[in-house]
Amino acid sequence: LLLEHVADLHASELGDVLEALQIERRRRLVSLLGTDFDLSALTEVDEQIRVDITEHMSNDQIAAAIGDMESDDAVYILEDLDQEDQEEILAKLPFVERVRLRRSLDYPESTAGRRMQTEFVAVPPFWTIGQTIDYLREDTELPESFTQVFVIDPTFRLLGAVDLDMVLRSKRSVKIEAVMRDTLHPIEAEMDQEEAAQLFEQYNLLSAAVVDQNNRLVGVLTIDDVVDVIQEEAEEDIMRLGGVGDEELSSGVLRTSRSRMVWLLVNLFTALLAASVINLFDATIQQIVALAVLMPIVAGMGGNAGSQTMTVTVRALATRDLDIHNAFRVIRRECGVGLLNGLVFGVLIGLAAGAWFQDVNLGGIIAAAMLINMIAAAIAGILIPLLLDRIGADPAVSSAVFVTTVTDITGFFSFLGLASWWFNIH
Amino acid sequence: LLLEHVADLHASELGDVLEALQIERRRRLVSLLGTDFDLSALTEVDEQIRVDITEHMSNDQIAAAIGDMESDDAVYILEDLDQEDQEEILAKLPFVERVRLRRSLDYPESTAGRRMQTEFVAVPPFWTIGQTIDYLREDTELPESFTQVFVIDPTFRLLGAVDLDMVLRSKRSVKIEAVMRDTLHPIEAEMDQEEAAQLFEQYNLLSAAVVDQNNRLVGVLTIDDVVDVIQEEAEEDIMRLGGVGDEELSSGVLRTSRSRMVWLLVNLFTALLAASVINLFDATIQQIVALAVLMPIVAGMGGNAGSQTMTVTVRALATRDLDIHNAFRVIRRECGVGLLNGLVFGVLIGLAAGAWFQDVNLGGIIAAAMLINMIAAAIAGILIPLLLDRIGADPAVSSAVFVTTVTDITGFFSFLGLASWWFNIH
Ligand SMILES: [Mg+2]
Ligand SMILES: [Mg+2]
Ligand SMILES: [Mg+2]
Ligand SMILES: [Mg+2]
Ligand SMILES: [Mg+2]
Ligand SMILES: [Mg+2]
Ligand SMILES: [Mg+2]
Ligand SMILES: [Mg+2]
Ligand SMILES: [Mg+2]
Ligand SMILES: [Mg+2]
Ligand SMILES: [Mg+2]
Ligand SMILES: [Mg+2]
Ligand SMILES: [Mg+2]
Repeated sequence: LLLEHVADLHASELGDVLEALQIERRRRLVSLLGTDFDLSALTEVDEQIRVDITEHMSNDQIAAAIGDMESDDAVYILEDLDQEDQEEILAKLPFVERVRLRRSLDYPESTAGRRMQTEFVAVPPFWTIGQTIDYLREDTELPESFTQVFVIDPTFRLLGAVDLDMVLRSKRSVKIEAVMRDTLHPIEAEMDQEEAAQLFEQYNLLSAAVVDQNNRLVGVLTIDDVVDVIQEEAEEDIMRLGGVGDEELSSGVLRTSRSRMVWLLVNLFTALLAASVINLFDATIQQIVALAVLMPIVAGMGGNAGSQTMTVTVRALATRDLDIHNAFRVIRRECGVGLLNGLVFGVLIGLAAGAWFQDVNLGGIIAAAMLINMIAAAIAGILIPLLLDRIGADPAVSSAVFVTTVTDITGFFSFLGLASWWFNIH
Repeated sequence: LLLEHVADLHASELGDVLEALQIERRRRLVSLLGTDFDLSALTEVDEQIRVDITEHMSNDQIAAAIGDMESDDAVYILEDLDQEDQEEILAKLPFVERVRLRRSLDYPESTAGRRMQTEFVAVPPFWTIGQTIDYLREDTELPESFTQVFVIDPTFRLLGAVDLDMVLRSKRSVKIEAVMRDTLHPIEAEMDQEEAAQLFEQYNLLSAAVVDQNNRLVGVLTIDDVVDVIQEEAEEDIMRLGGVGDEELSSGVLRTSRSRMVWLLVNLFTALLAASVINLFDATIQQIVALAVLMPIVAGMGGNAGSQTMTVTVRALATRDLDIHNAFRVIRRECGVGLLNGLVFGVLIGLAAGAWFQDVNLGGIIAAAMLINMIAAAIAGILIPLLLDRIGADPAVSSAVFVTTVTDITGFFSFLGLASWWFNIH
């Protein structure tokens, strides 16, 4: 009875149920559902869970289920299996499907070719609207759903597309070529999925033709899968900025701990580097302990200001709002902000520290150090991501560690250095 | 000549051009374009630019341009104008349009009602497919584009919907009610846009009916606008986690500086708090300067580990992957990760510090402090966002400051406290 209810769920709801269950129960549910198990639910769960479930199903079972799925969902599941299982499953499928899926799988990971669906509707340009509608009414091999009809020549070269609302608005006698529109931005199958998603956003597309190098139509990329790409990319940036790798919420302690250790290890080295800067001034600190009390403030505020600039820069690079045309303006602005915030917080901390330790000199020194570090933070926060992006590295991954290294070292060095120079302690 | 080229651009391309230009040139371009200026380009630019351009256009001009736009885009521009201009522009529009736009504007900001389009196609259930197609061929007041036909009763109550591909696949004699599907998840106009976007993602929708409290169809929300919402929300979380408010890339120095100051000011207070903890142990530091050298490592590593846990938690809350069902499991996992990483990095830093300062006791003390702080980081990183979310605050905004306050204070207190107890210095 409960099983019947589960079998009625939408694929994504079933996915949520699977994610909520513990491993053993999850496997049991899948085996209880048997052939009622809708494999497309696996496109909605974490990779680990997907792999675990497919490993506990026989290749026969998977092949049978995949035969009924849309090609993009089938590819999504197949791509995570090992080569051997993949081949065995493909071998069990009918010829046409096998060729289709293999074509998608041949494109590199994270390309439009991998995410596209190979089921689409295409007609020649000389057909009329009437012919097209009749064809749609009779054909039984249509995709599950579609929002446009592509127009191709006999060699499958893409000529244009007609949205379904245009088909419905037009008289039966009108020729397809009279109502078709240019597909202004056909997507190359080798194009990175992130770039394809940008095109969807920019031109508000619902679906777009995917073509090979000879402009032959090979598939269609649809907005619902692009939404997943957009989500994934934004998610990736958030996680990377937070120093977290490819972990998933369903990962266990060991796996999670291991994935986070790399980042912490890098940070340990930079922290030791900053500590060795402090160590240069041990004599100064011994004489004026207030320096040890105040120095984390200078370093920390610089780190915060640097993160602000870095966050804005990384995000603007990801959305391609920041490019060669406005980079100079943004750099100037960030330096201006750094200068202004440096002045404001320099004065504030100068007054606070001066009052706290009853020492005007100390107030002046911390104010100057704060100003210097805020400007350093601004410059590091904008230039480091820009440079990383320039040399082809992902600015979201490594900007934070470089920026905080700069602000820690500049903060400690300027504050302790100024103090030891001013009070003449070596 | 150049102007002609600009007038041919897609709205979003024109938007990019406007964003790339400086204020004066931007205004000049708009006034040169005159009635050729496609106002929907303003839905693709930063709010500041939108407001600046509309302020430099006459209300007559805006009203004329808005009359040609889709209602959702018109609302997007109108909502940022001041009340007075809004009223004046609305007064210049034809009655039907005015009523429509006002209805959208009456819904609160960031709701589905604000983002919906009031142009849609709706037919009664007893029509046939043939009648529907004939109606679509004849009617001249159709929306610019649409992907489904809604089915309503005479009082505008929503009965269901038919996707266009279903209309095209079906024979002319088939009744609409025979092919219509339930709109499983109609969106209430008062629903927050973020929640509506979740429904689009979960059920892979292209467009969805928006209904009022009496289930009467009032508009349609389309995926291209939902994509913008998804982007905005992810963007908002990234910016908030980075301590950046509502600033835009086009903002000037003063505005940017002001918006970032709040966050820096909060951090200044917490930094002073952490400094006062260090101050408690000034005698200890004076005797063992190595403590001042090493203490930022303990605090910093805790901060990094805390950010990792916090990032994962904030993100999982935003995507609703973390809820009451798995919160306990995730809390347990994070504590496990904190313990494990604490042991690993405790041993590492213990060995490094012991070797550096030739002092086994110091190594042992920093190892213990690191372990304590890593566990505190894990607990703070998971519980603070969960609690903030529980009391209805946005965990992305303020988690970071609380978490680093906890890790700074715990780091300094445990390290310096253990040292002063072990070496018996007060
Ligand atoms: Mg999910
Ligand atoms: Mg995958
Ligand atoms: Mg868009
Ligand atoms: Mg799909
Ligand atoms: Mg999918
Ligand atoms: Mg990326
Ligand atoms: Mg843009
Ligand atoms: Mg707005
Ligand atoms: Mg919101
Ligand atoms: Mg989805
Ligand atoms: Mg729209
Ligand atoms: Mg729009
Ligand atoms: Mg949010």
